[in-house]
Amino acid sequence: MGRVTILDTLLRDGALSEGVSFTPEDKIEILQLLDRLEIPYLEAGWPYQWPEDLEVFERARELDLKGRLVAFGSTRRPETDPDRDPNLRALLKAETDTVHIYGKAWSLHVEKVLRTTLEENLAMVRETVAYLKELGKEVIFTAEHFYDGCRHDRGYSLEVAAAAVKGGADILVLGDSVGASLMHEVAKGIRSVKEAHPDVVVGFHGHNDMGLAVANAIAAVEAGAEHVQGTIGGYGARTGMTDLSTLIPILKLKMGIDVVSDEALRNLTPVTRAIVNKIGVGDLDYHPFVGYKVFAHRTHSHIAAVLSDPETYEPIPPEAVGNERRLLLPGIARASYLESLAQRLGVDLTGDSAANQRIREELLRLEEAGYTYEDAEASLELVLGKLTGRFHPAMTVERLRLFEVIRGKHQPVVEASLRIQLGSHDEYVAAEGTGPVTTLFEVLLGALREVRSELGPLEDYVCGIKLAAVRVRTFYPRGKQELRARVTVTFSDGARTWSTIGISRDLIQATWQALFDGIEYGLYTKAEAEGIEPPLFK
Amino acid sequence: MGRVTILDTLLRDGALSEGVSFTPEDKIEILQLLDRLEIPYLEAGWPYQWPEDLEVFERARELDLKGRLVAFGSTRRPETDPDRDPNLRALLKAETDTVHIYGKAWSLHVEKVLRTTLEENLAMVRETVAYLKELGKEVIFTAEHFYDGCRHDRGYSLEVAAAAVKGGADILVLGDSVGASLMHEVAKGIRSVKEAHPDVVVGFHGHNDMGLAVANAIAAVEAGAEHVQGTIGGYGARTGMTDLSTLIPILKLKMGIDVVSDEALRNLTPVTRAIVNKIGVGDLDYHPFVGYKVFAHRTHSHIAAVLSDPETYEPIPPEAVGNERRLLLPGIARASYLESLAQRLGVDLTGDSAANQRIREELLRLEEAGYTYEDAEASLELVLGKLTGRFHPAMTVERLRLFEVIRGKHQPVVEASLRIQLGSHDEYVAAEGTGPVTTLFEVLLGALREVRSELGPLEDYVCGIKLAAVRVRTFYPRGKQELRARVTVTFSDGARTWSTIGISRDLIQATWQALFDGIEYGLYTKAEAEGIEPPLFK
Repeated sequence: MGRVTILDTLLRDGALSEGVSFTPEDKIEILQLLDRLEIPYLEAGWPYQWPEDLEVFERARELDLKGRLVAFGSTRRPETDPDRDPNLRALLKAETDTVHIYGKAWSLHVEKVLRTTLEENLAMVRETVAYLKELGKEVIFTAEHFYDGCRHDRGYSLEVAAAAVKGGADILVLGDSVGASLMHEVAKGIRSVKEAHPDVVVGFHGHNDMGLAVANAIAAVEAGAEHVQGTIGGYGARTGMTDLSTLIPILKLKMGIDVVSDEALRNLTPVTRAIVNKIGVGDLDYHPFVGYKVFAHRTHSHIAAVLSDPETYEPIPPEAVGNERRLLLPGIARASYLESLAQRLGVDLTGDSAANQRIREELLRLEEAGYTYEDAEASLELVLGKLTGRFHPAMTVERLRLFEVIRGKHQPVVEASLRIQLGSHDEYVAAEGTGPVTTLFEVLLGALREVRSELGPLEDYVCGIKLAAVRVRTFYPRGKQELRARVTVTFSDGARTWSTIGISRDLIQATWQALFDGIEYGLYTKAEAEGIEPPLFK
Repeated sequence: MGRVTILDTLLRDGALSEGVSFTPEDKIEILQLLDRLEIPYLEAGWPYQWPEDLEVFERARELDLKGRLVAFGSTRRPETDPDRDPNLRALLKAETDTVHIYGKAWSLHVEKVLRTTLEENLAMVRETVAYLKELGKEVIFTAEHFYDGCRHDRGYSLEVAAAAVKGGADILVLGDSVGASLMHEVAKGIRSVKEAHPDVVVGFHGHNDMGLAVANAIAAVEAGAEHVQGTIGGYGARTGMTDLSTLIPILKLKMGIDVVSDEALRNLTPVTRAIVNKIGVGDLDYHPFVGYKVFAHRTHSHIAAVLSDPETYEPIPPEAVGNERRLLLPGIARASYLESLAQRLGVDLTGDSAANQRIREELLRLEEAGYTYEDAEASLELVLGKLTGRFHPAMTVERLRLFEVIRGKHQPVVEASLRIQLGSHDEYVAAEGTGPVTTLFEVLLGALREVRSELGPLEDYVCGIKLAAVRVRTFYPRGKQELRARVTVTFSDGARTWSTIGISRDLIQATWQALFDGIEYGLYTKAEAEGIEPPLFK
């Protein structure tokens, strides 16, 4: 198979996803991230629908991106001259060399949604494409609902495709716009259009309503498509669309199509994670290729197999996409696993020194108490950092109390008071709030704010740490009758996120431990990055 | 295409997923949920790997499930008699009519992982299947790594399949165990095996490492497979495996294969949501067919199109899978879903009476606050029961306070005090404990113990209610900046289990609500069953 070009439409179709929204700043940042993947077409906005996108195009032109910027719009309205059509005027204001327009390829949509004649719709397609070609643009035309149309009135859908070719479209994209097609239907559509128009580049745009958007893109390419649209992270209307972070490795590593360079492919995991974390919607944990838990092996037999040959349980080498292997066991007692985890955090536990012995004993004690770190590696890094002298604990809690009126005559009340040593400072602070977790978080930040002027370059940092999520599960420890709470807390400082864990019979104790560890971790690692010597507080 | 049987392995392969774990109690609950989907094979455990699964099989036999229970294991060890093999012994202790065993179908695994000869591996497969057949079992054999094997040494993989057929396997499953295969490879494998063994039922088991587990299952069925394995929710080792909640609607609605009844299909959304919420791992929002945001339409043009004809932007009718359309414009209520839930609890909300109007308003108010009941139906039953006069609330909290020393000179302390009306009795009680959840639970039970002599036949019942599990997730409500806690609590009285929900900005408030509702639910339904007339407390 030959050349395939990719168009990413995260900033346009992705913005149709419930819960997803972008400021112009977000879009600029994301464009720069996407460009690290060497994606040839970057669809950055829809000027008619979202006029603020014009600012994005203006700023993006200054960025010196490798990819081509693409603006999105539609065919002209019925009975309207292209040069008077407000949608096309907005599109052209984006001043991109490449434009992407869509037209209806399903008679039902033409009649029920556009409310015009089938003949006028064909003219709209042909004339709009021709108009944009006359202006010197590269034109990508998407035949929206091509496959739905084929199921109902195949002849008409093919006429729409022919009208776009007649208008001079450079790339003719067949849309599975409701995500309702199976792979053989997609392949058949691509082949029909390629047979009718052997010289035009045919492409595919597919939604994920049946979980098949990646598979359908593969079927399209196998049938001769040379252009695929999608989004990093799979964002798009409803269930989303073809996820490029899944498709790109398959095209390159399994189908031998050089869509991006080896180096760009190695950027896939960090770029996808950065984008998904930035959008704040969706869960990457189990995401093919780029997820946190996907090159993770859990049972003894799987781990033994992977240690003898990774290919036994891995579809591609994780490092090819910038990801990494993780070997998990329930708990961390097994020495080799423990060692490899510590090694990843910069601690060599292989030697038999007294120091190593002490570390292993402490980790074993924690494991007995139920600690596992798959989703809370910051806690493990903190434990190891303290045991090895990398971190110098500078915060000691003397007393912490929580009081709550859960039901009463008046409004519910939550109060916390804290006496804490911060270096040589002895602070007493109180806080009130709407719940115990935020109140405990506030009382700790309150104490740090008291000494912020001591923190040098970290002065503002402490105020910028945010709680991103709290998760609690309960379990019965082996052989015990008493329910334990396992709490993980995720923090964000704007640039990175980290998670910590607390375990206790007491939900609040466990939460406090995760909160305290998370703040310590944020401060100590930030101090390290800023080159601040201990003690942290002057 | 003809008949296709489904095997769900959530309780076995799903348990290999990082972060997923089940107690025997969980497994029993999930088996009952899965059985509402009429899945013919329910793989409930792996007795050799997890001996506690034997308890699950023992209890599951009493459940009168429609689906067949399946126990999982492997071929015998090299150079070991089947009747002396500890894995097969454990497997047989499960006493299921159907067993599922796997054997290696990739020469690399045989040599590097099993460390035996290719010839001995063939004998292991053939003899193990034959041994189980002699014992009268229905035998499902999975050729693990069949497709990886085909890529390296096709002849050997086919020999393994032949050995299983020779041993007498009833169903021969080809495993894409690393999820590294494309659809055409899967189809080719199925066809080759069907050609060689036209009389055996051929099946498919596929992992999702490349995001293709559903597509590959479809390709397998199109190529002639008559058995598919997967899990509701897509849980499984690493990225998971074929998601049955995606596959089942495609097989039934798009491919015309009657895998489950129309009624079972309508249970798909509530059952999948209940399971995913129970597991507490993974995000259903954008999940095909059963997600919260998948029949959601956001732009005016999409909404206008869907209002004129839903087919314009929907791959299937949402009600066919028990889901519902959501138009993301203000003022459009989602009544139909709640109506169907209420109906299952014996309340007919379809009429336009004033009483129904009041109930709908209350349910919508709760829904706005974030309440969903898939995993906490006792709460909905309680709300409906109070609104319809089925239950007569007999417990009113006057005042509740919680005090906790989280860190201090002495041992941590948790104390709660409660003033409560129980019928005509006014009680004041205090409790201390090891954590806030158990302390709040204790203080409420303490108050009930004060009036237990008033409870007639329920006198001992109140003391027998146990906390089985507590789960907390946090979320940001639509358009709000403030984290909310969603707490579900599961209770058990020895004979049955039930779950309730609380939502609040305050984790403890939310927990209290779920605790209080759970005790009310337990008491009121038990009183109903015992024929005790209100008022509950004399």
